[in-house]
Amino acid sequence: MKIVTTLSEMRIERSLLPEPVGFVPTMGYLHAGHISLVKAARIDCASVVASIFVNPTQFGPNEDLARYPRDLPRDLALLEAARVDMLWSPTVEVMYPSGFQTWVEVEGLTRSLEGELRPGHFRGVTTVVAKLFNAVSPDKAYFGQKDAQQAAVVRRMVRDLDFPIEVVVCPIMREADGLAMSSRNVYLNPAERQAATVLFRALSAAKAAYESGERNAEKLRTLVREIVTAESLAKLQYISCADYDTLEELETVRAKALLSMAVLIGKTRLIDNFVVGL
Amino acid sequence: MKIVTTLSEMRIERSLLPEPVGFVPTMGYLHAGHISLVKAARIDCASVVASIFVNPTQFGPNEDLARYPRDLPRDLALLEAARVDMLWSPTVEVMYPSGFQTWVEVEGLTRSLEGELRPGHFRGVTTVVAKLFNAVSPDKAYFGQKDAQQAAVVRRMVRDLDFPIEVVVCPIMREADGLAMSSRNVYLNPAERQAATVLFRALSAAKAAYESGERNAEKLRTLVREIVTAESLAKLQYISCADYDTLEELETVRAKALLSMAVLIGKTRLIDNFVVGL
Repeated sequence: MKIVTTLSEMRIERSLLPEPVGFVPTMGYLHAGHISLVKAARIDCASVVASIFVNPTQFGPNEDLARYPRDLPRDLALLEAARVDMLWSPTVEVMYPSGFQTWVEVEGLTRSLEGELRPGHFRGVTTVVAKLFNAVSPDKAYFGQKDAQQAAVVRRMVRDLDFPIEVVVCPIMREADGLAMSSRNVYLNPAERQAATVLFRALSAAKAAYESGERNAEKLRTLVREIVTAESLAKLQYISCADYDTLEELETVRAKALLSMAVLIGKTRLIDNFVVGL
Repeated sequence: MKIVTTLSEMRIERSLLPEPVGFVPTMGYLHAGHISLVKAARIDCASVVASIFVNPTQFGPNEDLARYPRDLPRDLALLEAARVDMLWSPTVEVMYPSGFQTWVEVEGLTRSLEGELRPGHFRGVTTVVAKLFNAVSPDKAYFGQKDAQQAAVVRRMVRDLDFPIEVVVCPIMREADGLAMSSRNVYLNPAERQAATVLFRALSAAKAAYESGERNAEKLRTLVREIVTAESLAKLQYISCADYDTLEELETVRAKALLSMAVLIGKTRLIDNFVVGL
């Protein structure tokens, strides 16, 4: 696996890659969810590029940028084993040099849910993803459904700005007890780790209700709320039942919808979701 | 010359073009300034793509979008004669479909001069240029020095977002009496057309002073102000003597600087500039 850290080197190495090129952007500290994206890219594409960049502009001032988990040697071994051809691993100085002042912003879709709780987060995400896309020039880019709003926002950005890139969204990977894989799960102590299963339990109950015919969005949200409230270590930040593309809250589930939630377990913020009506 | 109006057609036709590809974005109603950009691209590149799109998002609510001059048959003949290989000529509906909500914004550079007088203008420019770049995927893109701040903003956007594109800025083309060529010159009545030479006269005086050794920026600005004030049909909107890259106003001209101005001649807004210290 070629490791590339400067833009000039990237331009040269990129031109040598067999096409189509698949791209998996990450912030490192990889888990099976990331590797599932690499595997999907490996199946679709002649070359696979991954990136590791903990993007400072998508963290709020009171968020966990400084303590975000990192383990580059382990990440390199995992990407190598998954047959990634090239790793784009720029420094913060390469990505945000002195005088940097250009931002990409998706408006409507970023106002609710994560965007409401994390002001500026998606502006950081779309800006860095645009930069990564321009550096790597992939044919396809792979994102996890775990970050459902991020996937919707990136799809919107790609459509609105005419990026010649197909966005592929891959299913959430889960631990044996249902907890959605996340680099942030490492923050949980044993009691919190146990409590964290409440996200999956609550969503599973809502999904079962949906599958039994419940189409009233507020009833689905209420079901989730009740289950999370019963877990003493958990604090629900939001539960949403929204249109899959526009993320507008629904009264009645008629088409493809996203049931998504954010929960604080102690000081750790976890998100999870289900898509219904596929 | 192939005329392309949909993104799917563009993807196919673009993949067939010999590289490198040079790109000349325009709003149509072409003059010798635009054609000089095509000629520069023709010399540098194996293929030349031009675009004609009167971009509504860069016009303010009280600006001249509705009456902006258009003459597509003439434009096509001029581009054909200049040996353009492909014209990207999308409709407003193709560029800004329902649900469009993504914007590219350069912050600091767009606060002064044109950006101050035309709020939102550069957000429209950078958004549409990013879209055009993603549609055309050029190796080089050609802009006129006439729109000096636009050229600086686009260069900044390309650098900040890592577009794999070289921005080439070409000299201002002028009428015999010095008036910078502009599609908007057509708005001028004969008396205004005569008065419009005041921009070139004022800048020429400042340039002569610079060449005689004047390095005090305010003295150069004052010289321009005095000459414009003496022209009864002209109203100076701004005169700037600023750093070429950052557009910060200077006290003393030490390195490459931009002397730029906007003047109302009747209801027509004209801009012009000189670069000094090359």
